[in-house]
Amino acid sequence: MNIKNKSITSRDEDFAQWYTDVCKKAELMDYSEVKGFIIYRPYGYAIWEEIQNYLNKEFKKTGHENVYLPMVINESLFQREKDHISGFAPECLVATIGGQTELQDRLIIRPTSECLFCEHYSHIIKSYRDLPKLYNQWCSVVRWEKTTRPFLRGSEFLWQEGHTMHATEAEAKQETLRMLDIYDKMGRDLLAIPFVKGRKTEKEKFAGALETYSIEALMHDGKALQSGTTHYFGDGFARAFNIQYLDKDGKIKTPYQTSWGVSTRLLGSIIMVHGDDNGLVLPPYVAPIQVVIIPIKMNEPGVLEKTREIKAKLEEAGIRVKLDDSDKTPGWKFSEYEMKGIPLRLEIGPKDLANNSCMICKRNDGTKEKYSLDEIESTITSLLEKVHKEMYNAALKHLMAHIKEAHSYEEAKEIVNNGGYCKMMWCGDRACEDKFKEDTNATARCMPFDQVEFDDVCPICGKKAKYVVYFAKAY
Amino acid sequence: MNIKNKSITSRDEDFAQWYTDVCKKAELMDYSEVKGFIIYRPYGYAIWEEIQNYLNKEFKKTGHENVYLPMVINESLFQREKDHISGFAPECLVATIGGQTELQDRLIIRPTSECLFCEHYSHIIKSYRDLPKLYNQWCSVVRWEKTTRPFLRGSEFLWQEGHTMHATEAEAKQETLRMLDIYDKMGRDLLAIPFVKGRKTEKEKFAGALETYSIEALMHDGKALQSGTTHYFGDGFARAFNIQYLDKDGKIKTPYQTSWGVSTRLLGSIIMVHGDDNGLVLPPYVAPIQVVIIPIKMNEPGVLEKTREIKAKLEEAGIRVKLDDSDKTPGWKFSEYEMKGIPLRLEIGPKDLANNSCMICKRNDGTKEKYSLDEIESTITSLLEKVHKEMYNAALKHLMAHIKEAHSYEEAKEIVNNGGYCKMMWCGDRACEDKFKEDTNATARCMPFDQVEFDDVCPICGKKAKYVVYFAKAY
Repeated sequence: MNIKNKSITSRDEDFAQWYTDVCKKAELMDYSEVKGFIIYRPYGYAIWEEIQNYLNKEFKKTGHENVYLPMVINESLFQREKDHISGFAPECLVATIGGQTELQDRLIIRPTSECLFCEHYSHIIKSYRDLPKLYNQWCSVVRWEKTTRPFLRGSEFLWQEGHTMHATEAEAKQETLRMLDIYDKMGRDLLAIPFVKGRKTEKEKFAGALETYSIEALMHDGKALQSGTTHYFGDGFARAFNIQYLDKDGKIKTPYQTSWGVSTRLLGSIIMVHGDDNGLVLPPYVAPIQVVIIPIKMNEPGVLEKTREIKAKLEEAGIRVKLDDSDKTPGWKFSEYEMKGIPLRLEIGPKDLANNSCMICKRNDGTKEKYSLDEIESTITSLLEKVHKEMYNAALKHLMAHIKEAHSYEEAKEIVNNGGYCKMMWCGDRACEDKFKEDTNATARCMPFDQVEFDDVCPICGKKAKYVVYFAKAY
Repeated sequence: MNIKNKSITSRDEDFAQWYTDVCKKAELMDYSEVKGFIIYRPYGYAIWEEIQNYLNKEFKKTGHENVYLPMVINESLFQREKDHISGFAPECLVATIGGQTELQDRLIIRPTSECLFCEHYSHIIKSYRDLPKLYNQWCSVVRWEKTTRPFLRGSEFLWQEGHTMHATEAEAKQETLRMLDIYDKMGRDLLAIPFVKGRKTEKEKFAGALETYSIEALMHDGKALQSGTTHYFGDGFARAFNIQYLDKDGKIKTPYQTSWGVSTRLLGSIIMVHGDDNGLVLPPYVAPIQVVIIPIKMNEPGVLEKTREIKAKLEEAGIRVKLDDSDKTPGWKFSEYEMKGIPLRLEIGPKDLANNSCMICKRNDGTKEKYSLDEIESTITSLLEKVHKEMYNAALKHLMAHIKEAHSYEEAKEIVNNGGYCKMMWCGDRACEDKFKEDTNATARCMPFDQVEFDDVCPICGKKAKYVVYFAKAY
């Protein structure tokens, strides 16, 4: 077992402080001079790059193309879709001076890019042949926040925003669900995070959307974290932006729209789902460094040579590996790479050399075992897979243990107050959502696709129940 | 030979219009509603992604790490280095309102990030062990421009900015030259563009730098285009930002700094170095699509199947390939992919099928030849290499034919007025640079590393010559 790292607060003592400690000590981020804006340090940014690599492949398979649109939006353009502007106006950063001159039409630093995409689409969509348009953008967006927390809520965050246009309503709706599935799959394959997924309530949906879907992760402390959303817009924006095309049948039609995104919030999910009292614990496939090799008594003959040889072998096999041959002590190194959550630590000293073996320690459970150096690549490959599965299963077990059905409002309040999802029937009225929030601070996270009714009435108001819904306190 | 594509202006008729036509018709970009800000369309953005892939590998090899810093800079922070602020102040976009409230400390949308990196470095550099710091950032920057041209000069452009800190002056200077070499190598290996490289004059160097180096490409019309720069800052910013470290010898020292960048201007270079009257001509290794396969009489048995089989084979071999099996005519397709500059066009019809052969047309010179379908992967691989070499050599020939030595000011003016580089001796005085610019609009592009004096006096003023320098009109 690992010994608790004394440099960070323990999770049970103060989860919020533990989180901030991990963000800083694992060198994922730093605060900047600009209030609310963080610095994505190399180790944190590299995790984001792995997410980008994964999603770029998935997006390409499904025919999406990357583009880049301006980082600013004319205020006049932004106001064209009423629900959208009223949702975003309070949190806009606005540029009013350009080249030392006051701007006639002020510029909003993009909080999201629906308006810009729609304006562009209005120029390039003319015929049914131009559909579907499946665009994605990697960029940062700005939302002026009063209270901020690293990765979870900040004035600037990195994200991808997909914006698509389709000939039919059915196709657009299908896209909204397809992209949700890709995010869900990313949880299983890359992040080792099981999500609860479903549709947002009217209250919680995106400004301007007809339908919003989300994936929700459950943190160690029992709070939910919305980790990705997809939106179906119908033809609302398309009409506001005059996007029209000539269909096969010779008629002028309006296309249907979606948008979807995940952001650097996912780093928050990774930290709070998997982390422990020794720091970060990274799932192997998203880890910038999958194996760290630490030579023991590295001045003794053959040790360093052997670690270099192993490093080369593993790199050859496509494994992301770091050899720390610095003059720091093994103890310092152990603690450092535990903090950074590197999935596997491979130790080699003179005794191991003699046995043609090494010790490998799994970060996720602290177990340490001896392995032969023969076919070390396949040993490591298998261990990475094993660690990924174990981490996914542990997160799934935690999630399952924290989904509880409520049959009365008292039960419902108790469940969310204890942490976790309260699965309950709901009448569909906003008044009940508001009341639950006022009483407990819990919000409706989503309505699962699997709508199997288990009670007749909404436990909050006693009226007829319409939906199965998950409530939880959330970040 | 290809037939001239009538939808764009010819280069000789109006080069500026030809350039804009290619940018639009090859679907590299579009104008946005926000004046001066362009949209990087999928095809243009994909070229940028190839550049990113290339450079990320080179940066990684040389130990650089990617980071992401805020897109805004406090005005107070930006003012800390005097030369820097005076250079950038006139072209800043400034945000003054956040969350519907006037900001106390106004925010400048980053035009470059030296200040932010220095502020961050002041927190994380403490010991000689923390050096060197080799950071790079991919992002967009904003510079408020009055007149803009796609990719060449715009209010927002995409770039990478490296910012490094070193223990010694020598190491920092070496970094400045190392990165210039990487850019130069990218020209040879990826863009098929030979650069003239050297040091900038005092007048032309970056605001706040002690030394600036650049790579300069020569466009088809004889104008130069600065395509990348590296800067050595000494310890000026480091002192302004209080960056200090404890050295091995127990003394407190100030580190030395560099920065370096290339931007989406490179797309302008690619277009204007290689393009022709039929549109874009892309060098194979930066081309998002390297081969387009066009079935001829595709309804005849076996044709489509064969093109699909070839596509799969080429993809398997890592070649970027597109099969256009749409119902448009082959003629339409030929013209479309010529416009888009796809290096190789592979045609297969029923007759080719019978012969187990195909026709391959090289975009760079319009030649078309028959090839066997056996080992088509290696045929294509060789052809891509051949096209790359031919394009590089053609650009080199054009460059060499347009570097001319001037021994008198009359000669100098004639050379730059005819287009190309005037290589001449120069006294080093800014007055002569200013005069040359006033008379011809030419500017000092750079002073080559190879300083072999060939005249005693500066042809402009007649004073003793100090430097060999390249003058040219430039974008």
